[in-house]
Amino acid sequence: MTTTQKIRIGIMGFGNLGKGVVEAIRATSDLELIHIYTKRDPSRLQAEHPGLPFKSAASAPDDRDQIDVLILCGGSANDLPIESPRYAQWFNTVDSYDNHSKIPEHFAALDPVAKAANTTSLLSVGWDPGLFSLQRLLMEAVLPAGKPHTFWGEGLSQGHSDAVRRIEGVRHAAQYTIPLPAAMDAVRNSQAADLSPEDKHERVCYVVADRSAERSAIETAIKTMPAYFAPYKTTVHFLDETQFLAEHSRMPHGGVVIHTATTANDHKQRMEFSVQLDSNPEFTAAVLVAYARAVHRMHAAGHRGAVTLFDIPPAYLSPDSAEDLRKRLL
Amino acid sequence: MTTTQKIRIGIMGFGNLGKGVVEAIRATSDLELIHIYTKRDPSRLQAEHPGLPFKSAASAPDDRDQIDVLILCGGSANDLPIESPRYAQWFNTVDSYDNHSKIPEHFAALDPVAKAANTTSLLSVGWDPGLFSLQRLLMEAVLPAGKPHTFWGEGLSQGHSDAVRRIEGVRHAAQYTIPLPAAMDAVRNSQAADLSPEDKHERVCYVVADRSAERSAIETAIKTMPAYFAPYKTTVHFLDETQFLAEHSRMPHGGVVIHTATTANDHKQRMEFSVQLDSNPEFTAAVLVAYARAVHRMHAAGHRGAVTLFDIPPAYLSPDSAEDLRKRLL
Repeated sequence: MTTTQKIRIGIMGFGNLGKGVVEAIRATSDLELIHIYTKRDPSRLQAEHPGLPFKSAASAPDDRDQIDVLILCGGSANDLPIESPRYAQWFNTVDSYDNHSKIPEHFAALDPVAKAANTTSLLSVGWDPGLFSLQRLLMEAVLPAGKPHTFWGEGLSQGHSDAVRRIEGVRHAAQYTIPLPAAMDAVRNSQAADLSPEDKHERVCYVVADRSAERSAIETAIKTMPAYFAPYKTTVHFLDETQFLAEHSRMPHGGVVIHTATTANDHKQRMEFSVQLDSNPEFTAAVLVAYARAVHRMHAAGHRGAVTLFDIPPAYLSPDSAEDLRKRLL
Repeated sequence: MTTTQKIRIGIMGFGNLGKGVVEAIRATSDLELIHIYTKRDPSRLQAEHPGLPFKSAASAPDDRDQIDVLILCGGSANDLPIESPRYAQWFNTVDSYDNHSKIPEHFAALDPVAKAANTTSLLSVGWDPGLFSLQRLLMEAVLPAGKPHTFWGEGLSQGHSDAVRRIEGVRHAAQYTIPLPAAMDAVRNSQAADLSPEDKHERVCYVVADRSAERSAIETAIKTMPAYFAPYKTTVHFLDETQFLAEHSRMPHGGVVIHTATTANDHKQRMEFSVQLDSNPEFTAAVLVAYARAVHRMHAAGHRGAVTLFDIPPAYLSPDSAEDLRKRLL
C-alpha cells in the first residue's frame, strides 16, 4: 500500500476538520496518511478508531523526516496562531486560519520561521478565506472596473452559534446566515456599489433554553449583541432539545462571489463562483488536502517561507501531468 | 503618459477581439498600448481610428525591443496556428487558441520555438478554453470523486453561425446555443454521470434567406449538418434582414461549470463558476489582457517556452502587491 512516491501527510488535530482530512486523503491516489497528532490521549482515540495512526502531538517533531506536509486542523482563535509558526520549524504546513482581519499578522509570524527553517507554509486555505479569495483576485484582475461581492450562506455559522451559546440560559444554539435575495439581485444587476455585510445577510437562530430561563431576555441578548447580531435583521426561534438535535446537528454552508462590471459600450459582464455544501468541514478538508499536494510541490520547486493560494500555480493542485491537464481540461 | 515602468503591449489583429483588447488595456493602470499590427492597410485604419497606433504586421519583428508582450488576436482556424509560433520567435505572446482537440498540437508547435527564442508564450486564454479550464482543474483537484460538467450559453456561437452562413441561399445567420435546464438540474443533483454536448444543449438559428431560396431546403440542410446540428435539438426561424440586423448583431454569451461530488457520509458538495456576458469578445479581451500582465511576470521570473493558465501563479494576474492582495482579498 505504501509506496515511497506517495506524498506523506501528517494531521495535527482530530476535530471535525481533522476527520474530514482523513476522508479527503482517502479520496486521492497519490497521498498517504502517516500520523494523526493529538493533544488528547492517543491510546484512547486509537481504541475508538482502530484503523487510524494516532500519536501524541508532543512527538511530532521527531517525525519530521517521515512527513512531507503537516496539515494543521486546529481552530483559528486559539490553536493556529501558536501552532502554525511552531510546526513550521520542522514541517511544510497548511492551515485554515480564517480570521480575515488578522491574516497579515499571521503571515508575518509564519514567514520568518519558515524561511529560517527552510520550510514552506501555506496559510488560510479553505473556501473563505481560500477558494473565494482566489476567485475575488481572478475576477478583479480580469474586470478591474468592478468589485467582487461575497455572500455567505445559507449555512450554519460556527462563530455566531458559539456566541449565542455563551448567553446565560442557552443550552443549545444554531445560527444560520442567510443571504438576502434582493441584495444579490442588486449586485447581479450592478445596482449595488457598497453593501455592508448587514445589507447582504439576515441571521436566524434556533435556541434551546434552560427550563428556568426567560426566553424574552435571551432573545433580547441575541438581538442586541454588538457586531454579531445588532446590525442585522435577526430572527430567534425557540425549540425543544429533541427537535434541535434532530434538525440542527448538520453543518451545511454555502456562499457566492459575484462580480459585475461593464466593458466598452456599456456591455455588462458578470462572473460568479458559488459553493453549496452539505458538510462545511468535509469540504474545507478537501481543499486543504489538494493544497497540501501543492505545498509539497512548491517546496520541491524551491519555494520557502509563508505562501498563500495566490502564489500557487494551479497545476500543482492536480495529481495529473501537465500534458494530461492540457489535453483533458484546457 | 508613457512611463518606463508600464508593461508595453502590442496587439496583432484588429477585429472584434483586438478592439476589445484596446479597451481592456485602457481599463488598467499598469499597461500601455504601443502598436496595433494589421495585415490590412495601416493608414486606412489610422484614418478611421485617429487615436490608435497602427503599423503593418510585417514591421512587427523590428519592434521586438519596444514590446513586452504581444497579444495575438487572430482566429483559431487560420491565423493562430501560423502566427503564434511565428511571433514567439521575437515576442512573449498570448493567444486565444480555442480549438480544444488541437490544443496539444498547438502547444507542441509553440513550445520549441519559444524555448529556442528565450520567450514565454501563453496559449488558449479566454473563458473556454481559459477561465473555465482553470475552474475545471480547481474543482476536480478539490473533489476528485466528481467530474466537472460544462454548459455553454445562452449565447451566440460564432462557429455555428458561420456554418449556417455557408449554406446556399443564406444571407445572414445567428446561432444561439442554449443549455437545457433539465440537464443542468440533473448535474446539480448528481443524477448525471455522462452527458454528451447534445444532451446538454439545444440550438436555435435565426436566418435571413435570399428571396429565391427555398426555406425548407435551408432548414433541412441545417438540421442534418453532421456534428454541428444533426445530433442536437435544433430550431430554425426565418426573418427579414431589418429585424435580423436590429435583433441579432450583438455578441452575448455565457456558460457555467458545475461540479458535484459526495464526501464522507454521503454529503453532497457542489461548486459552480459561471459567466454571463453582453459582449463575448470584450470579455475574452479582458481575460487576455490580465494574462498578458502575468506572462510579462512569468518571463521576468525566468519561465521560457509555452505555458498555459495552469502554470501561472494567480498573484501574477493582479497589478497589486502580494501584501495588498493578502490584506484585501484573502
